[in-house]
Amino acid sequence: MRSSPEQSPSTLRWDGGIDGCLWLLDQTLLPTEVREIECRSVDDVWNAIKRLSVRGAPAIGCAAAYGVVVGLHGMEHVPSADFAARLTDVCDYLASSRPTAVNLFWALDRMRRVAAELPADTNSSDRLARLLAEAHAITREDREMCAAIGRHGAALVPDGAGILTHCNAGGLATAGDGTALSVIFAAAAAGKRVRAYADETRPLLQGARLTAWELAQRSIPVTLICDSMAAIVMREGRVQLVVTGADRIAGNGDAANKIGTYSVALLAKAHGIPFYIAAPSSTFDLALASGAEIPIEERDSSEITHGFGRQTAPAGIDVYNPAFDVTPAELITGIITERGVIAPVTADNVRAMIGGAR
Amino acid sequence: MRSSPEQSPSTLRWDGGIDGCLWLLDQTLLPTEVREIECRSVDDVWNAIKRLSVRGAPAIGCAAAYGVVVGLHGMEHVPSADFAARLTDVCDYLASSRPTAVNLFWALDRMRRVAAELPADTNSSDRLARLLAEAHAITREDREMCAAIGRHGAALVPDGAGILTHCNAGGLATAGDGTALSVIFAAAAAGKRVRAYADETRPLLQGARLTAWELAQRSIPVTLICDSMAAIVMREGRVQLVVTGADRIAGNGDAANKIGTYSVALLAKAHGIPFYIAAPSSTFDLALASGAEIPIEERDSSEITHGFGRQTAPAGIDVYNPAFDVTPAELITGIITERGVIAPVTADNVRAMIGGAR
Repeated sequence: MRSSPEQSPSTLRWDGGIDGCLWLLDQTLLPTEVREIECRSVDDVWNAIKRLSVRGAPAIGCAAAYGVVVGLHGMEHVPSADFAARLTDVCDYLASSRPTAVNLFWALDRMRRVAAELPADTNSSDRLARLLAEAHAITREDREMCAAIGRHGAALVPDGAGILTHCNAGGLATAGDGTALSVIFAAAAAGKRVRAYADETRPLLQGARLTAWELAQRSIPVTLICDSMAAIVMREGRVQLVVTGADRIAGNGDAANKIGTYSVALLAKAHGIPFYIAAPSSTFDLALASGAEIPIEERDSSEITHGFGRQTAPAGIDVYNPAFDVTPAELITGIITERGVIAPVTADNVRAMIGGAR
Repeated sequence: MRSSPEQSPSTLRWDGGIDGCLWLLDQTLLPTEVREIECRSVDDVWNAIKRLSVRGAPAIGCAAAYGVVVGLHGMEHVPSADFAARLTDVCDYLASSRPTAVNLFWALDRMRRVAAELPADTNSSDRLARLLAEAHAITREDREMCAAIGRHGAALVPDGAGILTHCNAGGLATAGDGTALSVIFAAAAAGKRVRAYADETRPLLQGARLTAWELAQRSIPVTLICDSMAAIVMREGRVQLVVTGADRIAGNGDAANKIGTYSVALLAKAHGIPFYIAAPSSTFDLALASGAEIPIEERDSSEITHGFGRQTAPAGIDVYNPAFDVTPAELITGIITERGVIAPVTADNVRAMIGGAR
């Protein structure tokens, strides 16, 4: 367990070989405490995803992939049927941790497929090694994906731009530089002067706790605002571009992301400001024709009524707490993927960019 | 000092005669604690306004009027020139407590005018009695104003409506039933089934702490949401009407209100939902041609970074914290005043309803 704020700890890292363990930066403690969680059991990983110690669709995918390896600890010498049964259980269990992030299911499917494609006589120890290699590959590809999104997105950022973002789609949400924030990092690295506006993102304040922290750590000028202030900063001409991440994107380009994203997209449209989603191809779920089919997680009312360690609403009050909303494709100027920018956002253009092999 | 949650304490009340004192419900402690503040000095009143123990434009006006009387304690027997000098000082001081709420200046002007219009030979004790009577009159008229706004507004509420409101424009913001909430109370009293949606209203959570509390206390069904969820509840068809208060309204109908109101108005327009402002005629400042002339108070960054007793953002981060924004007249379906509803909201219609004697 490390706790030095001087170090820049990884969002997630694997320590050891097939009997190793997963370390996750506990994002619930940021920005006041930098501490890692050691995950030695699949329950540790499930809980870390559930309670948002690790969050962000791509990071959840990586954590789940490593979670599969952790969940198969002790199975190195069992018969392959037992190994396969356990693999199914572990994947099903991890898939139940959060319902909206498609990368979770995508990563688990990749792990299942890799195991299924091994020769029947592969022993369990070799199976586990192959699964660990796949988790490493998912993580490495995630890093490369972030860099590619940054390259494609930076071209869309004017010099001197104010860039508004919502929630955290940064390095903390991925194994690399992030998705939306990768665009900002890459624009700054290319010498463009930028200022980020970070919506604090109630109820869980990922913008205040994570995005503002991450940008400040990397010396990107950032101004923190409440979600309700996005409209006024747009009206005052401070923002030339909005970019957010996404948790799942339907075949027509409708994008589910953190609650409030739809609101920001409407406000951007009203002010004539381009609104971009930055997300890897693994975020697309082409089985869904539109955003109406994306299941939306509802979370506990206490996130709103007791958000800051203090009761801030009357006891027993009715609360509505959807964790995500869906931004319709027509409000999205473009979707920045690792393969390029989808614009305008239409089912045809999504299919052309994403429809092929992953 | 009372602290029983069973009683329904007044937002403000005067206790005694010209040497009496002002009791204010400390709204910073709601909803977990119901406690009154005793104001025996003008500093007590100034601080209570400044730190939002009393808030809401009409209630601030009433509190300031009583604050003038409190500020003249001990002046019953001084020469009238000294009395007048002290009156000026007290009014100027109270006017500095908050910059945006026009009712504050309006109430103080009324107090100055009343004193100025007294015969020159009126002794200071009688002057003070006249000022106290004026403060009582301001408060009584405020109560009547609330009831009239409720009557005019209730007619605009369809049976079965979901009504979204932002911040607190309720009884806690006035001496009576409120402005925006008076519309809801009156609609319910008229037998209409309604459900309120209360934006929590960051940074100070007046919606969560005050509006949800006040509606629940009076058995109006209410659902608490984060500000970022207003768009999704509109899209889901849960809201048929938005009504908020205002802190200052320019001659053309542009309305300053709690930060986030402009955002809600844009979202309402995007969903084809009528957006109303409920405010007394004293909220209009016809000296201002448009909302661009309304000064906007910026408040301390700690309201965002240390919202509720806990640090939720990195130390030293840049913050932008405007307390109000201006909703342009063209986004306002109508302004519900105690004199009737101004609709459409144009300079001509404002002048016709408000331009005459106050």
